[in-house]
This record gives sequence, C-alpha cells and structure tokens, in this order.
Amino acid sequence: MTIAEQVATIAHNARQASFALARLSTSVKNRMLLLMADALEAATESLVVENRKDLAAGRDKGLSEAMLDRLMLDGKRITAMADALREVAALPDPVGEVTKMWKRPNELMVGKMRIPLGVIGIVYESRPNVTADAAALCLKSGNAVVLRGGSEAIHSNRAIASLLQGVMKELGIPEAALSLIPFTERAGVLEMLKQEELIDLIIPRGGESLIRFVVEHSRIPVIKHYKGVCHAFVDASADFAMATKIIINAKTQRPGVCNALETLLIHRDVAAAFVPMLAETLGDLQVELRGDDEFRRYAPQAALATEDDWAAEYLELILACKVVGDMDEAIEHINRYGSLHSEAIITSDYANAQRFIREVNSSCVLVNASTRFNDGGQLGLGAEIGISTTKLHSFGPMGLEDLTTTKFIVYGDGQVRQ
Amino acid sequence: MTIAEQVATIAHNARQASFALARLSTSVKNRMLLLMADALEAATESLVVENRKDLAAGRDKGLSEAMLDRLMLDGKRITAMADALREVAALPDPVGEVTKMWKRPNELMVGKMRIPLGVIGIVYESRPNVTADAAALCLKSGNAVVLRGGSEAIHSNRAIASLLQGVMKELGIPEAALSLIPFTERAGVLEMLKQEELIDLIIPRGGESLIRFVVEHSRIPVIKHYKGVCHAFVDASADFAMATKIIINAKTQRPGVCNALETLLIHRDVAAAFVPMLAETLGDLQVELRGDDEFRRYAPQAALATEDDWAAEYLELILACKVVGDMDEAIEHINRYGSLHSEAIITSDYANAQRFIREVNSSCVLVNASTRFNDGGQLGLGAEIGISTTKLHSFGPMGLEDLTTTKFIVYGDGQVRQ
Repeated sequence: MTIAEQVATIAHNARQASFALARLSTSVKNRMLLLMADALEAATESLVVENRKDLAAGRDKGLSEAMLDRLMLDGKRITAMADALREVAALPDPVGEVTKMWKRPNELMVGKMRIPLGVIGIVYESRPNVTADAAALCLKSGNAVVLRGGSEAIHSNRAIASLLQGVMKELGIPEAALSLIPFTERAGVLEMLKQEELIDLIIPRGGESLIRFVVEHSRIPVIKHYKGVCHAFVDASADFAMATKIIINAKTQRPGVCNALETLLIHRDVAAAFVPMLAETLGDLQVELRGDDEFRRYAPQAALATEDDWAAEYLELILACKVVGDMDEAIEHINRYGSLHSEAIITSDYANAQRFIREVNSSCVLVNASTRFNDGGQLGLGAEIGISTTKLHSFGPMGLEDLTTTKFIVYGDGQVRQ
Repeated sequence: MTIAEQVATIAHNARQASFALARLSTSVKNRMLLLMADALEAATESLVVENRKDLAAGRDKGLSEAMLDRLMLDGKRITAMADALREVAALPDPVGEVTKMWKRPNELMVGKMRIPLGVIGIVYESRPNVTADAAALCLKSGNAVVLRGGSEAIHSNRAIASLLQGVMKELGIPEAALSLIPFTERAGVLEMLKQEELIDLIIPRGGESLIRFVVEHSRIPVIKHYKGVCHAFVDASADFAMATKIIINAKTQRPGVCNALETLLIHRDVAAAFVPMLAETLGDLQVELRGDDEFRRYAPQAALATEDDWAAEYLELILACKVVGDMDEAIEHINRYGSLHSEAIITSDYANAQRFIREVNSSCVLVNASTRFNDGGQLGLGAEIGISTTKLHSFGPMGLEDLTTTKFIVYGDGQVRQ
C-alpha cells in the first residue's frame, strides 16, 4: 500500500470506530483514561528507551538544546503526562448534556443535546506528551482521534500510542479510535489533511509556521490561532498600583507565551502622572520600551515606536506604548492592530468597564485582570486542547465542550406537520 | 477598477462597518428593520418595474416557467417580504447575551458573551426575497452582510438592496454593512470567496450545484447542507396508526424538500402485520415503493431496491423500504447511508426511544414525530438562515444565534497570575 492508501485506511477505520466511541458511557471512558495513566507510569523504562532513540537522532540532526529538551522524557515528565490523563478523567463528560429544552405550541418537546464531532485530527510538533494529552481530550469527548506528531518524536509517539491502544483493546474499545500516522514523510500529513469526508476537524498545535502549513494544505476545517498581540488600556480612572501590578504580570511573568502583553495604551489624562513611574519600574525589570512621541515625552528612555511595533508579537521583554485621547481611540487601535486574542482595561469607572467588555470583541476581554488569564486552565475549562482566534465554532481557549456539537432532539406523541 | 478590486473594496468597507454594526442597540436594529419593511411596501410599484426587467431578460434567456415564477415579484410577495422583516424585528436579539458565568477560586468572574461573527457572505439563486430575508437576519445579529444574488435577479436585487440601504442612511447606520456585489459575471462571486481576511462565513442558499461550486472555490468557511436522506424506523412496539400517519406526512406532505422521508426501516417482528396495510395505503397515495427482498415478501407490488436506492434523495413520491432485524441494524443502516439530516423512530418502548435519541447523531432526531419538523420555524428558532449538516459551528437549522459566537469576559479586581 502507498502512504496515501494507508492514511486513507487509518482515517476510514477511525470514522468507523467513532460510532462506537460516541456511545461509550462516561464511566467506561474514565476507567480507560485512568488505566492509560497507570500504563504510562508502569512503562516508564521502555518509554525512556524509545525516547533515547529520538534524542540520539535529534542530536545527529543537530537539533538545538531547546528542541532536545522539549523532546526529552524522564520519569518526572511521564508522571506528569499520566497525571494529565487523570485530570481529564475527572472533568465532566460533555456528551449527552441537554443544553436547552423547550415546548412547542403543538406539544413537541424540542431540545439541543451535545454529541461528539466525530473524528479529530491533531497535527503537532516535538513534545511527545501531546500524544497522550490530545488523545485523552478527544476520547473523553467521545471522538476518535488521528494523531500526526513531529518526525523527530516518532519513536516516543509510537510507544505512547501503542500503550494507550493496549488499554483500549483490553477494555474492548476499538483501537482504531486512536491512531498515529506512522510516517515521518511530509506525505503523511498531506494525505491526512485531504480526508475531508472522514475527519471532521484539524487542530494544529505548534508554532506559526506549522499552523500556516496546515491551513494552507487542509481541505478539512482547521481551528487555530496564529499569534497574540495583546493590549492593556490604562483608563483615566485607573488605580496606578493595580495598573502597574497587572502590566508587570502580563508583560514579564512569562513573556514568551501568546497571552503575554505586547502593547500598552494609556489615557492622555493620566499619562504625565503615570508614565514616568511605570517606565522606571519596567526599566528596573529589564523591559525595553518603544513609545509614540507623546509617550516619550514622559519616558525619554523609550525608543521611538514604528508602525511595525504596533503589530508586533514580541514574545520577549519589549513593550510598545502609546498615549490615546480616549477609549474610542484605544478601541480603534485594538481593532486595527489586534489579533483578537486578549485585551484588558484597567479602570475604576463602572461605565467604562462595561463599555470595554461590550465593545471589544477579542476572544477574551478582561477588566482589572492580567491578560495571562486567557488560558483554559485559568478560566476554569479544565484541560485545553488549543485556542482559537477565529470566531467560527470556538473562540478563545477550547475545552472538552469545544470538541462537541449539538443536535436537535424532538420528543413527540404522533405529531405531523400541518 | 477591476472586478477584483471592486469586490475587495466592498469586503473591506463591510469589515469596517461591522464594528459599528456590532455596537448597535437592539432598539435601533429593530427600528431599522421595521422601517425597511415599510419602505419595501411603499416602493411596491418601482420594485415591480425593476422586477419586470429581470422577467423579460429571463424569458429571452429561455428560463423555465418554474424559474420565472421564483423570480417574480408582485404586491402580495412584496408584502410577504416586508412581513418577514417584521418577524425578524420581533425575535430576541442574541448579541450581548451572557450564556454562562462562573466564579474562579481567585474571585475572577468569568463569563461567555454572545457577539456577532463579523461579516457574513450570502450566495444565492433566483428568489429576490432572499436579499431582504438574509440581510435582516445578518443585521439583527449585528453582522455586516455581503450579498451575491443570481444574475437573473440583478435588477430586483439592486432595487431591494438600495431601498434597505436608504433606510440605514436615514438612521445614520453605515450603508456598507449591507452590500450587494453588483456584477453578474462569475468573477464577482469568485473574488468574494477569496476575501478570507474580511469575510468570516459564507452561507450558500440554493441547489446542490450552487453549494458545491461555493465549497469548491471558497477560502472562507462555508456552512452548508447538500441533501437530506431522511429515515424513519418503525420499531416492534410502534403504534401502527401513528406510524402510518407519520410516514404519510413525512413522505407526501411536501416530497420535494430536504426533510421529507426517503427511506423506511421496519422491525422484522412487525413486518408481516404492518407492511401489507402500509403498502396499500401508500399505493393509494401514488407513492412508488422500492423494497428489499424481505419487504417485498409482504408487499409484492414494490420494485426491488438497489444499492442506489438506499442512498437516494428522491424528492418525489418514491420510498425505499427495508426490513431490519433490530435497532442495531437500523442504526447501522442510517450511519452508512444517511446524510446526517433528520431521522425518526416510531415506538412505544421507552428504552428504545431513549436509545435512538442518544445513539443517532443526525442534525435532528425525532421520537414519534414527522421528519418534516426539522425546520427552523417548526423547531421554534424563528426565521432560519439555512441548515447545516456538517457539525462544525452549527448543526441543523440555523437561527439568529448561529450567526454569533461567544467571547470570554472576565471581571477582576486586580488579579494577576501566580
């Protein structure tokens, strides 16, 4: 069989298995996840052996130390992977939830019931723990899953997938509901992205270039986000101490992630009082400032910001800063340069807080809180399969519910249409 | 300007206008819709004049009488179009609804708020009333809309769109939020389908060939359904009178629509008692029967069904009939040949009803009711913009809510991430 035929067979078998998966009871799914966690921990030694093959190959290929670190599995990381499965087992099962039900004038009872999407494809890079994490979220939400990990992690991914499949076999659950594309060739992923009749959704997990590659080649809908150009707006009524604390947290707590702050907007009425103080504090924390002319009047140490800075996702200790005349100007700036990710206002004014919540349509809009809270775990979704900055199907961090859809259910007693 | 440039300009202006649309209050949107309804009725004469140009051109092109009838506008149809706008005005506004809100351990209040999708593109065929209907649903849900109607209705569509834009201008609402692609060339729609940075969703309304054309050429997500191969399963415990009534209604009340019944599955235990009676009744109603061997044992007048019959959307008075051994076989048949549209069970057995509801994952699953109820109006959504038989974003009839997404909103009092 060619690669194309083998990938098509995997997708076909996943589709067939998805019918059985959709019917599994919550207790069977949870038992499966807990047994998978135990199996991973019990197999620590053999997983580490397989992982060493990937690490050796990676060293030969000249992967960076950072890449090799992402790839590496040890006892501690395998336990963390197992614990993540236990956490998914503890989450509520979204399948079968009736989100609404109403009565029609003809006495029909009409409701909307959550059901799995069907088959979900995950395309990811070097971290082998995604194999277990993503599989757990898809299976818990009643979906079959087709995994395509990075070629550099192929031995680790195969070993993990085969352990998980072993548990499924033991429980009489069709193993085809969890498949790993076994090819390291690019053709493997390209063929997977063509299976639009068999795979319902593709979720890429990795850097922007991986995501752009997937979007460009997929005939299947893709849920993704490219980047996070997150804003904070310091309103005229902001509490300066609170604003400073939030800006420091959003910019410096973990600058390399998508919900870190990239652009700060400051109301003109407080610029003279707030900027010098803030600039000094941020300078002490090694944050490089780039501002417009008005900002630099109060913080001459800042470099002059260019058009590129307003659109930049720095992912490091650099902050673009701009003074704005009012909230309209702040919102216009966000609409123009933002990436629909996370935007915060710091304010003491009730009406302005409500207006910002209502009028800024990013995936997460916050009042008096750090942009770093835009994260599935922090917002209370439990584990997160990814984040979407496109509005269709899901917008923002995606939990188990986002791996489902709803069907209409109708209870009648013989009604026919007039 | 080339067609490509003009279409890009229309999409760009629609995107700009969408920010203002998203902020419009419910009362302004309703006032706009009611004034639009009045404007259409007041302009009956001039609309009929423009419509006559389309009818004359259509006759010259040799359009069928059925096509010309769909195209035709008269006083009665214009009043119906105006009344449809009034109905949309009366529907609840989904924008701003907080669908859930919860408190995190750190006292953050986290909620999900409905917001418009942004810009919606509608590609449709000859009925000019879609211009007003679709525009009303998009605008009421806070979206800008780009319309591309059939070339055969161009004069009518232009006249309707220009009346609606006149009302928007009067109220100070940006007219670019409602645009009509003014070209009859195919390039007009092709360019529209390329604007993936400016248009968020495409909804095609028309026959299967239009929908396939749009799906094939669109870089923007498309919500669609191709066909309805709807099933009814007569369980062993079915009330025969109720089953007969539902089957007659589902098959014959309006055979040419997507929620009409196409395949009947009958439990083996009642086939001998039920089939002869049913076959005679359906024969009296001019329904042609095509059955498997076992069905024909009890209804020899039926033709032998082929593999093609199980997958057929007849859209006429033909019914494919099959005897099955149990519900498992019925569900397997539906999974194999169905189109995820509408499936009904007729049963008196509580457990079987619940199992059918749970295990059949079509867009609408009914117990003891006609498949003809799978319709936005009948299910209680109010007006319907279309129906989706793909599971992403929307599944089943789509009302105003389906033209929105949800963002996360977070109310804090200075929280930062640990």
